[in-house]
Amino acid sequence: MAVLCKPAIAVPEYVITQEETLELAKRLHKDHAQLRLVLRLIEHTGVLTRRLIQPIDKVLKHPGLEARSTVYEQESKARVPAVVRQALDEAELEPQQIDLIVYVSCTGFMMPSLTAWLINTMGFRTDTRQMPIAQLGCAAGGAAINRAHDFCTAYPDANVLVVACEFCSLCYQPTDLGVGSLLSNGLFGDAIAAAVVRGRGGTGVSLERNGSYLIPHTEDWISYAVRSTGFHFQLDKRVPGTMEPLAPALRELAQQHEWNAGKLDFYLVHAGGPRILDDLSRFLDVPPDAFRFSRATLTEYGNIASAVLLDALGRMFDEGCADDGHRGLLAGFGPGITAEIALGSWTTDS
Amino acid sequence: MAVLCKPAIAVPEYVITQEETLELAKRLHKDHAQLRLVLRLIEHTGVLTRRLIQPIDKVLKHPGLEARSTVYEQESKARVPAVVRQALDEAELEPQQIDLIVYVSCTGFMMPSLTAWLINTMGFRTDTRQMPIAQLGCAAGGAAINRAHDFCTAYPDANVLVVACEFCSLCYQPTDLGVGSLLSNGLFGDAIAAAVVRGRGGTGVSLERNGSYLIPHTEDWISYAVRSTGFHFQLDKRVPGTMEPLAPALRELAQQHEWNAGKLDFYLVHAGGPRILDDLSRFLDVPPDAFRFSRATLTEYGNIASAVLLDALGRMFDEGCADDGHRGLLAGFGPGITAEIALGSWTTDS
Repeated sequence: MAVLCKPAIAVPEYVITQEETLELAKRLHKDHAQLRLVLRLIEHTGVLTRRLIQPIDKVLKHPGLEARSTVYEQESKARVPAVVRQALDEAELEPQQIDLIVYVSCTGFMMPSLTAWLINTMGFRTDTRQMPIAQLGCAAGGAAINRAHDFCTAYPDANVLVVACEFCSLCYQPTDLGVGSLLSNGLFGDAIAAAVVRGRGGTGVSLERNGSYLIPHTEDWISYAVRSTGFHFQLDKRVPGTMEPLAPALRELAQQHEWNAGKLDFYLVHAGGPRILDDLSRFLDVPPDAFRFSRATLTEYGNIASAVLLDALGRMFDEGCADDGHRGLLAGFGPGITAEIALGSWTTDS
Repeated sequence: MAVLCKPAIAVPEYVITQEETLELAKRLHKDHAQLRLVLRLIEHTGVLTRRLIQPIDKVLKHPGLEARSTVYEQESKARVPAVVRQALDEAELEPQQIDLIVYVSCTGFMMPSLTAWLINTMGFRTDTRQMPIAQLGCAAGGAAINRAHDFCTAYPDANVLVVACEFCSLCYQPTDLGVGSLLSNGLFGDAIAAAVVRGRGGTGVSLERNGSYLIPHTEDWISYAVRSTGFHFQLDKRVPGTMEPLAPALRELAQQHEWNAGKLDFYLVHAGGPRILDDLSRFLDVPPDAFRFSRATLTEYGNIASAVLLDALGRMFDEGCADDGHRGLLAGFGPGITAEIALGSWTTDS
């Protein structure tokens, strides 16, 4: 039994409000033909505040890819260890008891990934497996949990550390002026999340089944263009409508598990934007309130990419609403368009 | 029982010989203070020919990161499907029978990775899991096999497709003039390899145990600097000596399996350079001939990064020397410095 334990979350210290975001959009793009549409879309995200690793005037100046890569590495090294330490504490484990680190981050690139540095500096064993994933975007939060689940299924005594480190502000591209880009500039935020999946023991979500689903022929709906200025996020306007084709995949996986996806006790899903949550509520026939954890993440932090799922889970832990045996669904959504789905039940370590 | 089946390999059509490489180095770096050392190092690699996806004059002109990213995507799409098709044929499986695609490539970056496109265009199931890995470099060949092994251990009926696509020539950086860079320019080649790990049935290496090892505090010995011109490969001069600290880790894993790492029937290891093979032979006390498959890969194709292991395995299949029950060791080495090690026995599907 693999149990996803209480996550640790850290959001950085620089705050930008929706009001400030709207003011900024008006100032930077005052002659943009679709400014009013952009402002309406940003307002409609429901993102009230976001947290950034740098002050906004620094975020807005692109210093070149090399300098950005340096910031990515420095900020990762400065901020990730404390989150990892707390996630280990929540799971009541020491670094030496971790067998695999799944490290997901799509907003910067390092080779080796931070896993090697973490092993060297935090006292993980030299035989810790490393699974760095950079190419699953926001779906990687779900993928990380699912691959951790698989690993504990293969090795029931193993423990897996999952880390999601997303500095979306380091992918801000001042020259990208399409509506999708300007909307994204008002939607994404920075955050780090970590959690342990324990092979034995632990309080949290006991992972029972996982699955993946790719919506056919949508691989260019969410993508990066890789240029001399770094990753350019490209968002197709059809993306907000993807819950209609994805909901049946969620239902199907639940059915394979003899569960009804519309009748579960908790839902933790990637909050890419408000419509994803509204549509899931509609297509799964679940009250909107069921998505309150994901919605709170979106409202307070924005879309924090692969870190959303763990942040939403943290909020459920904090609310203390889950009882033993409560059944739930977790799902990350991202480029592909891919859904990484998990089914699990709440369990309390006795 | 997870069986690593016969791999498929494709090397591109443009050939560059060692002689041509040396001539080129002399012409491009005629005033370089350490030219003679560089020439000696390149000669000493034993790399006689390499294969490139573009003619050498195109390789030498850096067209900018955006254009290179386009070439990476186009060439991947043009060249990978045939290799995948052949790997599936070797394993006697159809795309619909694959449950996970592990796609490793460190010489270009796409989000989504090629997995989404492969699923859409080659008839893989929409619920195929995707595990793209870009940050394990040359060790990813071993990591891909090991994560496939883990997955089949968790789900014994599953089949995993492993793909290694490396276009090292797309990381050529004309402005990098250190000795390590100039040596690398004469060492790396392009190739694509794929193989299936079958959960049940299949002829090949029955995977029994795997492990990872990170040499402490060497994370900056092999690394990428990420700049506006793309990935810059940085090779520390201590890297060729890493088999001394790694050999004990290979021994240790074998010992856990009650095998003697010095007395196995076959060895398939990453051929990063000639010294790796010489030193392994020495530190494991194994005749140099045991590394003939890896050495042939190095001689004919150069260091083809994560594709080396599968290419060496393909050569062992072709030689037809393995008998049922023959025991062997596979190991990928790369940034971290990480070794990804597998132990397995030859098995013939009855």
